[in-house]
Amino acid sequence: MSDIGMLRLDAVMADDLSVVNSARISFAKRVEELGEADINLINYLMRERHGTPFEHNAFRFHVRCPIFVAREWFRHRIGSFNEFSGRYSEFTQDAYIPEPQDVRTQTGKPGDYIYEPLEEEAANQAIKQITKAYDTAFETYRELLSHNVAKELARIVLPVGAHTEFYWTVNARSLMNFISLRTAENAQREIRAFAVGVEEHFAQHMPHTWQAFNDYGRKAP
Amino acid sequence: MSDIGMLRLDAVMADDLSVVNSARISFAKRVEELGEADINLINYLMRERHGTPFEHNAFRFHVRCPIFVAREWFRHRIGSFNEFSGRYSEFTQDAYIPEPQDVRTQTGKPGDYIYEPLEEEAANQAIKQITKAYDTAFETYRELLSHNVAKELARIVLPVGAHTEFYWTVNARSLMNFISLRTAENAQREIRAFAVGVEEHFAQHMPHTWQAFNDYGRKAP
Amino acid sequence: MSDIGMLRLDAVMADDLSVVNSARISFAKRVEELGEADINLINYLMRERHGTPFEHNAFRFHVRCPIFVAREWFRHRIGSFNEFSGRYSEFTQDAYIPEPQDVRTQTGKPGDYIYEPLEEEAANQAIKQITKAYDTAFETYRELLSHNVAKELARIVLPVGAHTEFYWTVNARSLMNFISLRTAENAQREIRAFAVGVEEHFAQHMPHTWQAFNDYGRKAP
Amino acid sequence: MSDIGMLRLDAVMADDLSVVNSARISFAKRVEELGEADINLINYLMRERHGTPFEHNAFRFHVRCPIFVAREWFRHRIGSFNEFSGRYSEFTQDAYIPEPQDVRTQTGKPGDYIYEPLEEEAANQAIKQITKAYDTAFETYRELLSHNVAKELARIVLPVGAHTEFYWTVNARSLMNFISLRTAENAQREIRAFAVGVEEHFAQHMPHTWQAFNDYGRKAP
Repeated sequence: MSDIGMLRLDAVMADDLSVVNSARISFAKRVEELGEADINLINYLMRERHGTPFEHNAFRFHVRCPIFVAREWFRHRIGSFNEFSGRYSEFTQDAYIPEPQDVRTQTGKPGDYIYEPLEEEAANQAIKQITKAYDTAFETYRELLSHNVAKELARIVLPVGAHTEFYWTVNARSLMNFISLRTAENAQREIRAFAVGVEEHFAQHMPHTWQAFNDYGRKAP
Repeated sequence: MSDIGMLRLDAVMADDLSVVNSARISFAKRVEELGEADINLINYLMRERHGTPFEHNAFRFHVRCPIFVAREWFRHRIGSFNEFSGRYSEFTQDAYIPEPQDVRTQTGKPGDYIYEPLEEEAANQAIKQITKAYDTAFETYRELLSHNVAKELARIVLPVGAHTEFYWTVNARSLMNFISLRTAENAQREIRAFAVGVEEHFAQHMPHTWQAFNDYGRKAP
Repeated sequence: MSDIGMLRLDAVMADDLSVVNSARISFAKRVEELGEADINLINYLMRERHGTPFEHNAFRFHVRCPIFVAREWFRHRIGSFNEFSGRYSEFTQDAYIPEPQDVRTQTGKPGDYIYEPLEEEAANQAIKQITKAYDTAFETYRELLSHNVAKELARIVLPVGAHTEFYWTVNARSLMNFISLRTAENAQREIRAFAVGVEEHFAQHMPHTWQAFNDYGRKAP
Repeated sequence: MSDIGMLRLDAVMADDLSVVNSARISFAKRVEELGEADINLINYLMRERHGTPFEHNAFRFHVRCPIFVAREWFRHRIGSFNEFSGRYSEFTQDAYIPEPQDVRTQTGKPGDYIYEPLEEEAANQAIKQITKAYDTAFETYRELLSHNVAKELARIVLPVGAHTEFYWTVNARSLMNFISLRTAENAQREIRAFAVGVEEHFAQHMPHTWQAFNDYGRKAP
């Protein structure tokens, strides 16, 4: 079994300068180095929601995460995905087992839920039940395979907590939309962990853009 | 438990005439009724892969299907989706149980698999195992809920064979791409069943476009 | 010569109900008629920027406008376009001649321009100059054609004020983005005239969505 | 006045290896170096039209070209653009003057035109007329500006042969679609010149992908 997964930046073509130059082309201007006025320009673009200058870059991530996390991730249509296939390959017994502090209860209304940790004993009990259910599912999966059931059919018993793996290539504008939604208070805890990791890579490669994103409400422009 | 699901055309704005008129606007021409020359034009557009005239229409489908089918469906990015949420709502115990003739074995290589039905006894045995695994999963799900585990976390034990539900709005160009890939020999049997249903609605509302799609290799233009 | 152009709703599949039902599918719920709670839901979705439920609809417009307007219009990538072709067809001498009140001067800085009408005499003088430049351009165009220069080459002398014609099919989410940007104070006067017309059709077919759009800042969700 | 324009690769994140690895993730496999089997895989993906593995890369181009070329270019919606603005900046007198060999006549039917060069004298005559029409247009433009007409309005007299400038960021899948359509026999000569230049950069950075593109019909997968 396993933890929440893995996030790795596989390749990147991104800097703050490209934001500035793709905006300044309105004036047929181009700079080679980022100055004070350029940082102000980035702030202006973010504040006024001029989004297109943030698209001239690319981040490629390699992700390993539970299927229920991947399902939320793949809803982001502006970007490219290639994923592990349960039709072509056998799943190994990797699935997300929450830590005790991850086991929470939920109160409040849709869009405004409050999540609080369960007591430790209850949490441990839940983890045991989850683990047992996983075991049954993967056992059944392997039995079906051993009786020559096609992989694509045998997998239907596997839990949405099972791990999958994919590449994701995306530009900063779409990335900010992902970060905005998936690091929010009301995002699911598990995808939030990944979104926080994604944001670190973004902040590292486009620090002034990231700063402006933070300063102006953490919304994609 | 349940069968493969449900497909319903919820709304539609589509006819062959819009294909013709959006092509003829190149010449600032417009017709009010479909003539012989117009059908030839549709054939020409399909054959030469001029795709944009096939975009000026919309189909809205309401779909109920297993999660593993939905996952393939949602890979089609040119279109709109809204889906049932396991964060907001409890899953009912609905999941895909294959019929004996659906239980198959797989030989050959990726991209070139051959699928053949298992013998009846083996198939029935597989169905029993699948059903039992589902029962365990849904039972665990309900137990977790009864111990106040949040819905969004409890669901991680549910199988990808569980049913979900969504709306899908799409234009004919993207629809033909879906039909092309998902009715193909090497598409998974379960999504093929849906894609065949989708194709019937397409054929009914855009009969000449559908005919041309068939005549020219069943590829999206 | 001619005025600003033409806007016509060619087909539509849109209502407020589809917004509600595509949102309520999160709960596997569906209503057949719009109630008070549903209107509140539309407001909630708009305020919280949940955009996807606004995508399950389609508007098809037939537009005739100057090329410089079409160029701004075609920057909106989420939507479908087919346009008149100067490679296939001859341009007729249709081009945008501003009315005196449309002839303005510009002060201030990019993103914050102030436009004010020129005095009437100056405006009339400008209109004369524009008309004369158009005449020269179209005359040269016809001369080139009469000397057997290919249409696609001859057109290079035509002004961006010349009229073109296209179909545009778009969903309400993308439409709201268009309206938001193109009816704004700092949008160019000529595209604003079209955007105002587009908004009227939107308001008519999705009145509660339009009301919410207005109440929550006229930004696309 | 000026020639056809400029094309420059401004930044790139692209290689054949990313195609292979994003395909092999179906099998949870990853290679660090391109081998024989990998090249075969690229060929297989291209032949079978599996397009998504070709999306995990990015090319950013800086382009200067006539407006009528840019208009065809911007029809390619899968990609990012930022362009010179005639609302914010004054146009300099740069516009496309064809060389004698570029001046052609057109026979045949739409979609099947034949283009042949005009005789030299006729060609030179056409060039003179084009130049004169440009001169009148730019002169009127400057006059309007000198009478305080707003830049955004004054520009309406400028020809579609005038130069504009933009950044374009695009992945290899969309790039191949552009190359396929815009280097074709029936593409307009002027955009073909650019598309040929674009293809050279593509071939240099993804040589095996480019080879496969050529071997399997020069269609985007």
